[in-house]
Amino acid sequence: MTLPIGDFRYRPGARLDAYPTLWKVVKDAPDQLRASIERLSELQEVLYAHNRRSVLLVFQGMDAAGKDSTIKYVTSGVNPAGFQVFNFSQPTRKELDHSYLWAYWQAMPERGRIGIFNRSYYEEVLVVRVHPEIIESRPLPHETIDETFWANRLDDIRNLERHLAQSGTLVLKFFLNVSRGEQKSRLLARLKRPDKHWKYDPRDLDERDHWNDYQRVYQAAIEATHTEESPWYVVPADHKWTMRALVAKIICHEVGRLDIHYPPPAPDHEALVQEAIRRLESEG
Amino acid sequence: MTLPIGDFRYRPGARLDAYPTLWKVVKDAPDQLRASIERLSELQEVLYAHNRRSVLLVFQGMDAAGKDSTIKYVTSGVNPAGFQVFNFSQPTRKELDHSYLWAYWQAMPERGRIGIFNRSYYEEVLVVRVHPEIIESRPLPHETIDETFWANRLDDIRNLERHLAQSGTLVLKFFLNVSRGEQKSRLLARLKRPDKHWKYDPRDLDERDHWNDYQRVYQAAIEATHTEESPWYVVPADHKWTMRALVAKIICHEVGRLDIHYPPPAPDHEALVQEAIRRLESEG
Repeated sequence: MTLPIGDFRYRPGARLDAYPTLWKVVKDAPDQLRASIERLSELQEVLYAHNRRSVLLVFQGMDAAGKDSTIKYVTSGVNPAGFQVFNFSQPTRKELDHSYLWAYWQAMPERGRIGIFNRSYYEEVLVVRVHPEIIESRPLPHETIDETFWANRLDDIRNLERHLAQSGTLVLKFFLNVSRGEQKSRLLARLKRPDKHWKYDPRDLDERDHWNDYQRVYQAAIEATHTEESPWYVVPADHKWTMRALVAKIICHEVGRLDIHYPPPAPDHEALVQEAIRRLESEG
Repeated sequence: MTLPIGDFRYRPGARLDAYPTLWKVVKDAPDQLRASIERLSELQEVLYAHNRRSVLLVFQGMDAAGKDSTIKYVTSGVNPAGFQVFNFSQPTRKELDHSYLWAYWQAMPERGRIGIFNRSYYEEVLVVRVHPEIIESRPLPHETIDETFWANRLDDIRNLERHLAQSGTLVLKFFLNVSRGEQKSRLLARLKRPDKHWKYDPRDLDERDHWNDYQRVYQAAIEATHTEESPWYVVPADHKWTMRALVAKIICHEVGRLDIHYPPPAPDHEALVQEAIRRLESEG
């Protein structure tokens, strides 16, 4: 079946809860994923050869929404040299010595590459907004943490992405939209598999208790930062293979719209190629 | 004499050429500079101990305006550990693989420090605006270089400085305002001293031919980016000692307005100090 990826592109003014967490169980999702990965491989080569644009994929979602595995599946089989993947969790001490965008600037994808942020600067208006006490613990100037404070941060992020877009970076943002029920199943499954215990952090369950707060701050962040050039996609995450197939297809669709191509050969290129063939063939 | 530093703070809507290049020859400028450096040493220690704010000093000006020597004189005698000085000239290849703000983000001062940019991201709306062919030579997406392009870059810079201000960084910008006649004398003097020949770049004279273009783009950049929190100072640069004394005093004035102080001791601090004295004194 054809995946209607346009349906999952955020529409300004929409409600997050109008987007399904389980859209359909797409039977041939693994095949569709494989086809998209092949297409992505080609696109990535053109992006690299063209060397004037870059892509930043931002993955956000609740714990167990499938960020790690989606990144793993979507990039498997594509040349790793074309990707630059960064996981962001707790900021380091050195990072806290700079403004909250600094760490992310360090990791921006180079021209010709696809950067992937597993969590991102959006955490600064998500987990930090749900837990404003995080700000208190940081060596920042004392400030009033009110609606204006968050509006300013959202402005910062919109300005950052506008700058990136103007500098040739396509910023594509994914909210992996998992339901509370599906999260419960996945967390339980994790807890019952010793080889997954390393992924368990007691704080995960605490965050689960803030589910509605998170929905609220995601809604505010997505609404404030979705733009025509740097769109959000709200991808149903309750069926993992369907999610992976959707994400891969969205990436192909959006990267495929970039005006990228192999650089045209220099005028005397063909003569140089023929000369190189002669030289090699004339070797003893 | 008292230095009326407020006179050199840019006033929105003002004409750059209304600011003097030679204001006065202040006889006791070296003494005034020394007094300011002492004050700056104290302020820098408080800034470091407080560890919640940082300062970014941006120096811009035509060639031979005195950027290097002003930075040298103003920081001499202050603890070098409190400063982080960066000279920006030609971007490296790695820098060109990112957006034009990236290199400057790498160099942002840490909390508690005073960063100094000798030339800065402003070059992207100064030399690059006078020579838009620089853009052509860069691996950027092709874009129309019109007034909107420059307005967007000035927006970027204002947004960057707004973000920095909100994150606790005071950004102070100095335009060292040298006259065309004084530049001629300084360049000639340089050319006649073999030990200064290393500083000569044939392009310097070419840039001199674009004097009026530079005045025009400086005017546009300063007008667009002067804000109450991140002000520009247009400092008369034709008399070097006066310029140095003015710059040092402006820095002291602006840093002195920050709400910084030594952190209050912990409640049991005095007891711990007394205990430490006892332990040391009881050693054999």
